[in-house]
Amino acid sequence: MPQAVNTIINARWIIPVSDQDKTDYLYQHSLVIQQGRIEAVLPTETVSGQYTAEETIELTEHALMPGMINTHTHASMSLFRGLADDLPLMDWLNNHIWPAEAKWVNEEFVRDGTRLAIAEMIKSGTTCFNDMYFFPDITAQVSASSNIRATVGMIVIDFPSNWAADQNDYFNKGLQVHDQYKDHPLIKAAFAPHAPYSVSDEPLQRIQMLANELDVAIHMHVHETVDEINMGIENHHCRPIERLNRLGLLSPSLMAVHMTQLTEDEIQLISDTGTQVVHCPQSNLKLASGFCPVQKLVENNINVALGSDSAASNNNLDMLNEMQTAALLAKGVSGNAEAVPALQALKMATINGAKALGIDSETGSLEAGKSADITAIDMNRSGTEPVYNPISQIVYASQSADVSDVWIAGKQVLKNRQLTLMDEKDIIEKARNWQTRILTG
Amino acid sequence: MPQAVNTIINARWIIPVSDQDKTDYLYQHSLVIQQGRIEAVLPTETVSGQYTAEETIELTEHALMPGMINTHTHASMSLFRGLADDLPLMDWLNNHIWPAEAKWVNEEFVRDGTRLAIAEMIKSGTTCFNDMYFFPDITAQVSASSNIRATVGMIVIDFPSNWAADQNDYFNKGLQVHDQYKDHPLIKAAFAPHAPYSVSDEPLQRIQMLANELDVAIHMHVHETVDEINMGIENHHCRPIERLNRLGLLSPSLMAVHMTQLTEDEIQLISDTGTQVVHCPQSNLKLASGFCPVQKLVENNINVALGSDSAASNNNLDMLNEMQTAALLAKGVSGNAEAVPALQALKMATINGAKALGIDSETGSLEAGKSADITAIDMNRSGTEPVYNPISQIVYASQSADVSDVWIAGKQVLKNRQLTLMDEKDIIEKARNWQTRILTG
Repeated sequence: MPQAVNTIINARWIIPVSDQDKTDYLYQHSLVIQQGRIEAVLPTETVSGQYTAEETIELTEHALMPGMINTHTHASMSLFRGLADDLPLMDWLNNHIWPAEAKWVNEEFVRDGTRLAIAEMIKSGTTCFNDMYFFPDITAQVSASSNIRATVGMIVIDFPSNWAADQNDYFNKGLQVHDQYKDHPLIKAAFAPHAPYSVSDEPLQRIQMLANELDVAIHMHVHETVDEINMGIENHHCRPIERLNRLGLLSPSLMAVHMTQLTEDEIQLISDTGTQVVHCPQSNLKLASGFCPVQKLVENNINVALGSDSAASNNNLDMLNEMQTAALLAKGVSGNAEAVPALQALKMATINGAKALGIDSETGSLEAGKSADITAIDMNRSGTEPVYNPISQIVYASQSADVSDVWIAGKQVLKNRQLTLMDEKDIIEKARNWQTRILTG
Repeated sequence: MPQAVNTIINARWIIPVSDQDKTDYLYQHSLVIQQGRIEAVLPTETVSGQYTAEETIELTEHALMPGMINTHTHASMSLFRGLADDLPLMDWLNNHIWPAEAKWVNEEFVRDGTRLAIAEMIKSGTTCFNDMYFFPDITAQVSASSNIRATVGMIVIDFPSNWAADQNDYFNKGLQVHDQYKDHPLIKAAFAPHAPYSVSDEPLQRIQMLANELDVAIHMHVHETVDEINMGIENHHCRPIERLNRLGLLSPSLMAVHMTQLTEDEIQLISDTGTQVVHCPQSNLKLASGFCPVQKLVENNINVALGSDSAASNNNLDMLNEMQTAALLAKGVSGNAEAVPALQALKMATINGAKALGIDSETGSLEAGKSADITAIDMNRSGTEPVYNPISQIVYASQSADVSDVWIAGKQVLKNRQLTLMDEKDIIEKARNWQTRILTG
C-alpha cells in the first residue's frame, strides 16, 4: 500500500549535489515531500507504486536542484542598487555608501530593502542567505514572514550607526535578536564584525568568546583589498589574518568573506584551522579588489562558498549569474580550464554554503531527511537547448528567469514565476519611492 | 501638419549610444520609425505635434538601446552547446570539437544550428552578428529569411572540410557567397581565415589582396592562447602578429579576435595600424586562454568590439551577459574599478561592433538616418529596481529575459518576448533531434 505524502514533483532531471550519489544527476526522477522534508528521491517510473500524494507536480522540462545559498550579502542595500558605480572600494564606501547609509538607513529602509532583496532572491532560486547589516531584527522579521531561510548578522563596528550607539549597544541588540530566534526553524543569528579595519581587538575578543559559548558562526569581511592589508600593517603591525589568528578567530566558525589577498602561508593557515571562505567574484571584480585564488583553496581542502555581496556592488543578487562568473573566473585566474568545473561551482552555491553556515544537516542538497529547499529550472528555451549535461547548462547558460518554482521547507514560495507570499508590485513601488527620496533628499 | 510615419515608440528611457549626444540617456523620449529607418528621437511630450503614426507602441517601463552586435561567433555550433566543457582550447578542439565537426557538420546542421542561434540572439537583443563557419551560404540564407543582420565569413583553413576540399575550393565557394549577397540590405561577407596556426602564408596573401580589391573585412582568431604564440615561433620564427604585419594584414579591415597575448609593442602596432580588436571575455575565461588587456587597448585608442564566441565555449550567445562580464573583468584585470564603465561596455556591444564591421553609418546607435535596429529592455522587476541609471542597470543587472521587443531594419522580430518570424518550438525540436543523433551516433 503506497505511503500518503504531501507532494510529488516529477522532474526531467534531479541534481542532488550529494557526496553519496554515484551520478551527478538523475534522469526522469521524482522528489517526494512530506511535512516540509524530503522523503525520497527515486525514479519516476517507481514513484506511484510507493507514494500517493495530495499534490503531484509535473516539471517535464525542468531540473530540480537544491535551493541556492547566498553566503554573503547585505540585503537591504538593494535600495542602493546602481547608486554609485564604477568606483574603487574605499572611494565607494567613504564618499557614497557610508554617507547614504548615515542619512537613510532606518527600520523602514531595512524592511523595504530586505523585501526587495528577498523577492529577487526567491525569483532567482536562492532559498537561504547570510546577511550582514544594521537592524538585523527587521531582516529576521521580514525573512521569517517571507518564509526564506536566513542567518542574520549581529553586526559589530567601531563607529555608531542609526542602529546602535556604541559597542555595548551593538552587542546587546544583536544578542536580543539571537535570543528571539534561537528556536526558529528558518532564522539563525551569527556574529558579524564588519572588517579588520573597522573593528578593534576588544570587541573581536568578546565575539570570539561569545561565539564559542553560544555556538554561533562569525561572518566577517577579511582581506578584501590591498588597502585593508596596508591599514592592518599600519595600525596593528601585521596582516589582518595574522591578527585574527592571534585573537583566536580562525576556526570552522569563521566565514572569511572575499579573501583576495592571500600568501601561500595564509592559505595553509586557513586550511589548517578549517576556516570557511566566502567568494564574491562579481563584487571583487566590480570594485577591482583582486582575485580570490579559488582553485588553490579548493586544492587545499578549504570549503569555499559563494556570495553576491550587496546589489550596490554587483548589481544583482542572482546566484546563477554569480556561479557562472565563479566557474569562468577561476579558470582565467588559475590558467587552468579544468578549474572549478560546473559541478564544483554548483556545490559552492549550495552545499558549501550550508557547511559554512553550519546547517548542512538541514539544507544544501536534495537528500532524504533534509528540509525541502528546492529550486526548479526550466531548461526548455532556445538559449539553453540542446542539453547534453544539465549541470553544465545551469552553470554556463541558464539565467534567473529560467527559475520557475521554488520551495523552502516544503512551502512553495515561487509558483510558475509568481511569488506566492509576497506582493512584487508593492515591493517595487516602495523601492521607487525610496529612489525618489534618496535622489531628491 | 504632423508628418505621417510608420511607428512611434514611446519609451521611459532612450540610450542612443551616440557621440553627438550630450547626455548618456534620455528620459521619456520617443523614437520614430519611417520605412525601416530612424526618423527622429525626441521628447515624448513633443512627438504628437510632429508625427502621426500607423502604430504607436507604449514601452513605459523600458529602455530602448541600439540592437547589440555580436562581433564574433560560430552560430551553428549552438548544436554543440555543452557537449564538452571544462577543457583547455587545444584539447577541446583536437579531441572534441574538430572530430564532432568532421562527423556532423553539413548543410542541415548549419541550417538548424544557425536557426537555433538566431532565435537565441534575437531573444537576447542582438540584431547583428559576425559569423565564421563552414557553409556560410546557408548561414546567409537563414539570416536573410530571419531578417537578422549578418556578416558571414568566407572561411579559409588549410585542411579540408565537409564544406570545401582545398584552398581554391574555399576561395571559390566563399566568393560566390560574397557575389550573391553584395547588394543585400542585411547580409555581407567578410574573409574569415581561421587562425595563424591553421592558415598558411599563401592564402593569407591572397586574402589581403582580395579584401582590398573587394573592400571587405577580414575576420580572424589572433593571439588567442600561449600555444598559438609558441606554434608561431616554431613554424614561422616569429609571433603571429609580426607575421600578419609582414603579410600586410594589419589594418582597419582586420578584426583580430581574442588578443589575450599582447606585448606593449604589439599594442602600439595594433593602434598604429587601426586594427580592430574583438574581445570575447567568457570564452577566454572558459578555455583559460588568458586576459585581453581591454583597458590598455581603450587607452591606446583601439576600437574594441565584443563577441560571445560559439555556444560551445561560452555556453550562450547572450550579449547582455557578455557585456556584464566585459565590464567586470576589465576592472579586475586592470586593477582599476573605473576601467570600462557601463557606457563603455555598452559601446563595445553596439557601435564599436558596427565600426569593426564597417557598418557604423548603418547601425550601432539610435540616430536619425540609421537603420531601425532597436532593442527594448523591460526594467520593471525586483532584480533591476530601483533604476538610478538605466545604463548601469542594463550592464550590471539586466538579463536576456528582460529583452521584450526587438526591431531590425524597422521590422519587429520580437514582440513581447515572442519571435515573429521564427517557430521557436520547431527550432528546439530540431536541436533535440541533433542531440540524439550526436549522442547515439
